[in-house]
Amino acid sequence: MKIKSVLWYLLGCVLVCSHVSAGPFDKGRWLDLTHDFSEETVYWPTSETFKKTTVFEGHNEAGYYYSAYNISTAEHGGTHIDAPIHFFEGRHTVDQIPIDQLIGVGVVIRVDDQARSDRNYQFSVEDIKAWERQHGRLPEHCILLIDTGSSQYWPDKKAYMGTDQRGDEGVKQLRFPGIHPKAAQFLVGERKIKAVGIDTPSLDYGGSRRYQTHQILFEHNIPGFENVANVSQLPETGFTVIALPMKIRGGSGGPLRIVAFVPKD
Amino acid sequence: MKIKSVLWYLLGCVLVCSHVSAGPFDKGRWLDLTHDFSEETVYWPTSETFKKTTVFEGHNEAGYYYSAYNISTAEHGGTHIDAPIHFFEGRHTVDQIPIDQLIGVGVVIRVDDQARSDRNYQFSVEDIKAWERQHGRLPEHCILLIDTGSSQYWPDKKAYMGTDQRGDEGVKQLRFPGIHPKAAQFLVGERKIKAVGIDTPSLDYGGSRRYQTHQILFEHNIPGFENVANVSQLPETGFTVIALPMKIRGGSGGPLRIVAFVPKD
Repeated sequence: MKIKSVLWYLLGCVLVCSHVSAGPFDKGRWLDLTHDFSEETVYWPTSETFKKTTVFEGHNEAGYYYSAYNISTAEHGGTHIDAPIHFFEGRHTVDQIPIDQLIGVGVVIRVDDQARSDRNYQFSVEDIKAWERQHGRLPEHCILLIDTGSSQYWPDKKAYMGTDQRGDEGVKQLRFPGIHPKAAQFLVGERKIKAVGIDTPSLDYGGSRRYQTHQILFEHNIPGFENVANVSQLPETGFTVIALPMKIRGGSGGPLRIVAFVPKD
Repeated sequence: MKIKSVLWYLLGCVLVCSHVSAGPFDKGRWLDLTHDFSEETVYWPTSETFKKTTVFEGHNEAGYYYSAYNISTAEHGGTHIDAPIHFFEGRHTVDQIPIDQLIGVGVVIRVDDQARSDRNYQFSVEDIKAWERQHGRLPEHCILLIDTGSSQYWPDKKAYMGTDQRGDEGVKQLRFPGIHPKAAQFLVGERKIKAVGIDTPSLDYGGSRRYQTHQILFEHNIPGFENVANVSQLPETGFTVIALPMKIRGGSGGPLRIVAFVPKD
């Protein structure tokens, strides 16, 4: 009987182990949440855009193929991170953000319906509560991604952010969804999240001029991911987000590679 | 008795589950394997270096703090990735490398003793076999990191790569450890690895002029990580590597953020 108990015990161990022992990323799929950098990449109307110049490309004198390029960009364009210092003095620069804050359980809250009829829609406390009524309280230390359905317009600047005009004139015409300052306040005061991402050019909506959502989140050292891609392809929860920015010393942000691992059911 | 068996079975499940259910990255520590980008960052003598220029920094007219910068860099400098296209026509550009190839079980092979006495040391097939005699065959689909002990010299260019001279004169004086082409041939022919990283400026050693190791690995679409940091702080195996490059369309490489998760014993 003792032996039988041990066998049952071992069966339990084995069945559970067989489900997990292959490693964290063996059963499921990777999803790239990053738009690539090219001359098409969407930037703020007043920002420097992405440039890639050729150093060499082709077969060289020694007889082998070789290619290399130089690049330049504003920190804040394409799929990128806003470090807290971007809008709040004394908070984390991009190289100071702890790695642990950039990797974690992901949650998607969808407001694509709301944003379809109002391209200046502001993600609200009620949107969070509606998600929680269905899924339970936002998991502690999650990375929150907001799906406004805007990725489908990328890289058509007019459709994506309301304008393809450059300069201050362009800024006046910006129209895209963002996060209402009251929702930002709720997230820092009533919940615990590691970071927040959105599939539009900015955490604050297109009509914002004071960028209060940035200030509220960044005061609490919560970084933001902007122009995130493919959020609409993610489930609402149960996946892992990995968001690693270029490590610019003293940077206020920078190019971000963000991916998700969605386990197989 | 039946109930007892079920209880034993459940105990097995619970004990194993309690060990893993907290998620893949809860018990252990993150290690950043990335040097930051600044005016100190080490580049190839003929490459454009990193530049960061200020767009704005301080309190603006609206009364809140704001900072933003522009950056420029060669793709191949600092902690960066070499995409296979860098030295082999028709192979992956940096945006084409599958995410799955950039994340996986890490292995460190140390040759810091050899590299101390010979700063042009070439990592050999024998170094791989010596590791395997101790730890068993290189795990399939691992990410191999080579510890030449060079990180300690960063960012002192003379100590790190033999010269602080710029231009073609500098190239002639390069001295740092790399991977022997025969070891590269062994890795693509006899083993299966996802990617290979090294804590020096190049996969080929400082004295190389034909960069054969690059060509061998890249023909097989194995990307390389260069100027990797903190490899000496890693255990020899049993950790996870995550290496996410900037997603440059058609890029031959680019800034890389590379981190490792080392589980707690």
